[in-house]
Amino acid sequence: MRVTIGRKAHFNAAHRLYNPNWTDEQNAAFYGKCNLPNYHGHNYKLEVKVKGEVDQETGYLLDLKWLSQIIKEEVEEPFDHRNLNLDTPEFRNLIPSAENIAGVIWRKIQARLPKEKNLDLMIVLYETERNFVEYSGE
Amino acid sequence: MRVTIGRKAHFNAAHRLYNPNWTDEQNAAFYGKCNLPNYHGHNYKLEVKVKGEVDQETGYLLDLKWLSQIIKEEVEEPFDHRNLNLDTPEFRNLIPSAENIAGVIWRKIQARLPKEKNLDLMIVLYETERNFVEYSGE
Amino acid sequence: MRVTIGRKAHFNAAHRLYNPNWTDEQNAAFYGKCNLPNYHGHNYKLEVKVKGEVDQETGYLLDLKWLSQIIKEEVEEPFDHRNLNLDTPEFRNLIPSAENIAGVIWRKIQARLPKEKNLDLMIVLYETERNFVEYSGE
Amino acid sequence: MRVTIGRKAHFNAAHRLYNPNWTDEQNAAFYGKCNLPNYHGHNYKLEVKVKGEVDQETGYLLDLKWLSQIIKEEVEEPFDHRNLNLDTPEFRNLIPSAENIAGVIWRKIQARLPKEKNLDLMIVLYETERNFVEYSGE
Amino acid sequence: MRVTIGRKAHFNAAHRLYNPNWTDEQNAAFYGKCNLPNYHGHNYKLEVKVKGEVDQETGYLLDLKWLSQIIKEEVEEPFDHRNLNLDTPEFRNLIPSAENIAGVIWRKIQARLPKEKNLDLMIVLYETERNFVEYSGE
Amino acid sequence: MRVTIGRKAHFNAAHRLYNPNWTDEQNAAFYGKCNLPNYHGHNYKLEVKVKGEVDQETGYLLDLKWLSQIIKEEVEEPFDHRNLNLDTPEFRNLIPSAENIAGVIWRKIQARLPKEKNLDLMIVLYETERNFVEYSGE
Repeated sequence: MRVTIGRKAHFNAAHRLYNPNWTDEQNAAFYGKCNLPNYHGHNYKLEVKVKGEVDQETGYLLDLKWLSQIIKEEVEEPFDHRNLNLDTPEFRNLIPSAENIAGVIWRKIQARLPKEKNLDLMIVLYETERNFVEYSGE
Repeated sequence: MRVTIGRKAHFNAAHRLYNPNWTDEQNAAFYGKCNLPNYHGHNYKLEVKVKGEVDQETGYLLDLKWLSQIIKEEVEEPFDHRNLNLDTPEFRNLIPSAENIAGVIWRKIQARLPKEKNLDLMIVLYETERNFVEYSGE
Repeated sequence: MRVTIGRKAHFNAAHRLYNPNWTDEQNAAFYGKCNLPNYHGHNYKLEVKVKGEVDQETGYLLDLKWLSQIIKEEVEEPFDHRNLNLDTPEFRNLIPSAENIAGVIWRKIQARLPKEKNLDLMIVLYETERNFVEYSGE
Repeated sequence: MRVTIGRKAHFNAAHRLYNPNWTDEQNAAFYGKCNLPNYHGHNYKLEVKVKGEVDQETGYLLDLKWLSQIIKEEVEEPFDHRNLNLDTPEFRNLIPSAENIAGVIWRKIQARLPKEKNLDLMIVLYETERNFVEYSGE
Repeated sequence: MRVTIGRKAHFNAAHRLYNPNWTDEQNAAFYGKCNLPNYHGHNYKLEVKVKGEVDQETGYLLDLKWLSQIIKEEVEEPFDHRNLNLDTPEFRNLIPSAENIAGVIWRKIQARLPKEKNLDLMIVLYETERNFVEYSGE
Repeated sequence: MRVTIGRKAHFNAAHRLYNPNWTDEQNAAFYGKCNLPNYHGHNYKLEVKVKGEVDQETGYLLDLKWLSQIIKEEVEEPFDHRNLNLDTPEFRNLIPSAENIAGVIWRKIQARLPKEKNLDLMIVLYETERNFVEYSGE
């Protein structure tokens, strides 16, 4: 029996969007308010979904306490109450758009999943209640 | 890197369900309260999801301001505060069930997406908090 | 021990706003999209809050099944899937604004509460997720 | 036109997790608080999603009143306000983890769907607002 | 400047309602499904609201980390994943209705608030998404 | 008939908490993660509630489009996508805690309400889904 389990988490961070290869005018024209120089912020909400086989002995796909701990170590501790542009090495050379944040989080969690269990990972990242990104490693 | 981005929107509209080829009794028996003659209404909530390749120069799959504008022109302006049966030509010969409204919205937004970008479109339409329809063009 | 208990309910209805003593131009100018002639609609959400003394024998302020039944009879059955302007006598001579709908609902439920229990009634009516009205009989 | 319709429902139940083949110490170590002996409980939320062809005569994939009735008979009536370990035969020999509850619900509803309509069933079960399971019969 | 700050928390517990002075028939007739013998459960959600003077030096009414810790010690640790009837001494002789749980929680938190700060405490307890109780010490 | 109407709004902003009269160590010890130097951010949600007399001619307490415009001018335009410490003059000498932001917003909106209508203003500001502040001018 192959199911998907999901776990929600959240972190509050500042960021701004700009491409260092562009002029200020190009950045302002393309990114609009998201390019304002002194940063703005979001309450990011994260859904981590893992698909795999249920262990008939435990009734679990995997232990959600373990998954919560992975999310805490890989996402909440390094990103919460941080400035994504200034404080987190992952975005030193990567624009912290919701798309790229989702990619970074997916790769960090994927690296912690046990390879032998044949698990599929999908994440959903809400930047606001109205905007979100889904990524599953494609 | 192929991600899905999502954007939420909403509109408030009146409608009723009936099949003009049926008798009043048949309509009342099949559609129940949704067939009452003087219309009722809903706060429809819409999720528009687009899957495609992230542009590495911008960090965006596509500009959400552009997508919001498309949703505004194709859905919010023509449908909000309207009677779907009487005011919108799409439902002159089409029963405005949630299934059909979802189909109409999908086709209107699909027609506006750039063909060359190889995008997949999926929408979710909530008629109430408890009832919803997903459509992806199948 | 004096507590407030609350119960949520909902109904889906059509309405439009206009003042029969005004010209069409005055109505359109004042009410905007809410004045469009063929009605629009909402998923109204209702919170009914009753404050009173907890009965030490039962642990209840009052039986929520009883309160749910009152809400069903006074609000859900007469208003759900109806056109408030055309189908409900309460709005024959009363503009069905959220303020007035809240007043009507408050008076209908208040009339059903037992007088001897010294209960305070307050209702909250959400017309959309962003707009709401509270009324407590003042 | 092939769409997915969804319907939400809920039930409030007690349960505890333990494997009768393990010692108490093994159970406590593995399941943690979920293993506490006197049961705890949840407001389970259920989404039932059915994918299939829209009937052009009715505008419906299927009648949501019918689907609601199936959910009521198969899930709400037998599970609501029950102790899943003690009151429901499905969990006499099956650990009532969210994964297994989702599997049981999927099979009960699947058995009621008309075979000839080529419908796909998927359910989402929220044990809390932060934990959920999706199952589609794989 | 006198403001109200609020903090949300939650716990998952089992309970049943019955009055030991009544017969089984009286209990079943009055409490209905809430009286079923093997317990059921809820994801209780709690809002703790404290009103008082803002400290101009810190910009805080009080430190939310401190308030969160109080809620954890007084509510989450003793009640989460417990059976309120069997595991918690507060309900040994008190029916664990939502009204009474709200009263118990209010008194436990009130006892921890500093007396000299002239604070007003109000709590809201959601037993389900549709049913809730507010209590402020009256 | 005296009712309360409410309108929701939101803005996304960066901030950090520190008291310029304290040492870095004092600030870090008191404010914790909220004191981190490069700012973090939130999706602030705002509820603006106004209590007053319903105008029997219009059925409105006041025009929500007008109230939305006031909120846009006084809150959304100056605060959205801004750094509250660096970009907004109101917080040059005021710690941008949720308590103080709520006070600033209340005073800005209160200054725009018509004096002759005897209106009461109350706002609720959610910094996260779990933390909020209410202020009504006391």
